[in-house]
Amino acid sequence: MSQIITLTTDFGLSDGFVGVMKGVILGINPQATIVDITHDIAPQNIEQGAFVFANACKYFPPNTIHVVVVDPGVGSTRRAIALQAGETFFVAPDNGVVVYAARNLQHEIRAVHLNRPEYWRSHVSNTFHGRDIFAPVAAHLSLGVSLDALGDSVTNWTQLACGLALRYGDQIVGRVVHIDRFGNIVTTIGEEMLEAMDRTRITVTIRGKVLQGVRSTYAVVERGELLALISSSGHVEVAARDESAAQMLGAKLGDEVVIRS
Amino acid sequence: MSQIITLTTDFGLSDGFVGVMKGVILGINPQATIVDITHDIAPQNIEQGAFVFANACKYFPPNTIHVVVVDPGVGSTRRAIALQAGETFFVAPDNGVVVYAARNLQHEIRAVHLNRPEYWRSHVSNTFHGRDIFAPVAAHLSLGVSLDALGDSVTNWTQLACGLALRYGDQIVGRVVHIDRFGNIVTTIGEEMLEAMDRTRITVTIRGKVLQGVRSTYAVVERGELLALISSSGHVEVAARDESAAQMLGAKLGDEVVIRS
Amino acid sequence: MSQIITLTTDFGLSDGFVGVMKGVILGINPQATIVDITHDIAPQNIEQGAFVFANACKYFPPNTIHVVVVDPGVGSTRRAIALQAGETFFVAPDNGVVVYAARNLQHEIRAVHLNRPEYWRSHVSNTFHGRDIFAPVAAHLSLGVSLDALGDSVTNWTQLACGLALRYGDQIVGRVVHIDRFGNIVTTIGEEMLEAMDRTRITVTIRGKVLQGVRSTYAVVERGELLALISSSGHVEVAARDESAAQMLGAKLGDEVVIRS
Repeated sequence: MSQIITLTTDFGLSDGFVGVMKGVILGINPQATIVDITHDIAPQNIEQGAFVFANACKYFPPNTIHVVVVDPGVGSTRRAIALQAGETFFVAPDNGVVVYAARNLQHEIRAVHLNRPEYWRSHVSNTFHGRDIFAPVAAHLSLGVSLDALGDSVTNWTQLACGLALRYGDQIVGRVVHIDRFGNIVTTIGEEMLEAMDRTRITVTIRGKVLQGVRSTYAVVERGELLALISSSGHVEVAARDESAAQMLGAKLGDEVVIRS
Repeated sequence: MSQIITLTTDFGLSDGFVGVMKGVILGINPQATIVDITHDIAPQNIEQGAFVFANACKYFPPNTIHVVVVDPGVGSTRRAIALQAGETFFVAPDNGVVVYAARNLQHEIRAVHLNRPEYWRSHVSNTFHGRDIFAPVAAHLSLGVSLDALGDSVTNWTQLACGLALRYGDQIVGRVVHIDRFGNIVTTIGEEMLEAMDRTRITVTIRGKVLQGVRSTYAVVERGELLALISSSGHVEVAARDESAAQMLGAKLGDEVVIRS
Repeated sequence: MSQIITLTTDFGLSDGFVGVMKGVILGINPQATIVDITHDIAPQNIEQGAFVFANACKYFPPNTIHVVVVDPGVGSTRRAIALQAGETFFVAPDNGVVVYAARNLQHEIRAVHLNRPEYWRSHVSNTFHGRDIFAPVAAHLSLGVSLDALGDSVTNWTQLACGLALRYGDQIVGRVVHIDRFGNIVTTIGEEMLEAMDRTRITVTIRGKVLQGVRSTYAVVERGELLALISSSGHVEVAARDESAAQMLGAKLGDEVVIRS
């Protein structure tokens, strides 16, 4: 069956690890359509992985199988899981990395603990479950194996340890979760959190810099000027016209961002 | 239908944007064969995008649909267009980025202004037309939708603002349009411009350095020595044997290159 | 036919070269499934290419066609070859880059010198045999052309000039062959070479640092501490828990690594 399997990892593209996962998948289902979302998640950064993946995942059709491997706990006792939300499947370590995306689909979520080795490679290493467990499980799902066959049902899967953004009175506190290729600083604060606010009057504070308003387009500021706007993924973003805002501000993943009305 | 759709952008591979475009395409045509040309065009560098794309585009079979998104004008009033040259299709912003490639195919070019929202995603952002317009339009083309269905015919599409290389008497003036992974400096000057010249006697001047002759192979110079030769894409290239010519000369995109007979 | 063709090169992804190879392949066999192993082999580093490719290659199913282009000799008199080992095919320059992988498959190896231009592009450049010879030959193989049709049989193909790891009495001497994205230092010393040794008592010496034992998991050391262990590819690896061992040691490709019992 020519089902879509996506891959999101922190493996990079230099070491052949991603190619190996594709070889394993195609060895089980030669008809699978494999799509890379990204392999450049910062090493072991579960929150960034969850965020970037969730923003991409929603543009794939139903019946897609998503494999996400950002897995600092590999080789320890952390569980491997598979989730189903509607007709979409997720295969990942049980560390929260796919939960944010799965919840966004607004379907009931079912989950299993991947504990049936007959769907894995025969030898499982301590360091590369992407190859040995997640890739073969995804390939078997793409051939029509049911979620329930893959392991015992669980309900206590891991949520992301840290809330992505929180509201305190008239403040919203979020964090820098991603810096894109253009140096735009994407925050964890979703557009829907601004709903009751006057966007022209709120302020966005990041690394001591206070920006006035959340604007609709880059074109309202001069070249090189900073502004806050809504990113294409629907989050508050700090950018600079034709410049790298991240460089101008020295911003890093995890920096606090505060919105005040 | 299993038609080929190629993607060329300045999005990089870190942010998931390319994966999102693939999700949108496969949601419309699950049989499409999607091929990346490159996503490492320098941000918003239309000329480099046009050049790298044109060199790759000619190696794809007829009936290929090429999507090129280097789009500094996204969100402004620049038009989105689709072109047809022979049996090859191009989908891009109307900023010249595909015109150089389309002209190379030496077929009559037909173009439409993409103004039929029924072939787009239902919500179109101000910042990501790759996802919202270009990807779905390409997917619909791959399903057999005709060029004319996609929008009104236009004839005044944008040419590249700057000529790629010009002849002044016995001089040819071009520019550095690409520096490859090996530090080879590719210029806008095509091999065909040298036709009437004696290749052993011409000089190539770049950043104050004068190189004698356009040679046929690296092997004619010593390790670390600079030379001019014809690149695999058919352009004058400045290289150094087993070294990075770009580093040796401090060359940058846009530097002037002059050939004198 | 929907056969798998893998690509491993030192071309990087910025220049469109890999996209061009895919265009050439799909022009000959539109049904081919093309998989990237990696394009980030260090420029012209045959040994690293051979090693990274061999580790990935074994996870692909039989009947896969592997194209490996790390080719410092392009344009010189080095031969182009194709190998068959069991049902797996290899297309590469005759410089040893695929031999290590082919031998690992433990089948008899047959080889031909690629000297039948009817399976190449009509014009062959001096600089880009990936496009002009290796890609079209692989595409023809994927359509069922036999190895023998591609050229004359040869038996004297190039072995890797340098042994990957050697045993001297109770010492094993290998080298750093790859440094992965996480800064883990992979050596040429395969796990099987340690067979008769007591893993807790041997020492691993690299850049003057002596590490005690080859451990089974990162978890046995503190954060930031160095250790030797077996990599997911089955080689002795020097790593640091949650840190880059390569940075801590200043390790480079080619550094000597010595194991003493």
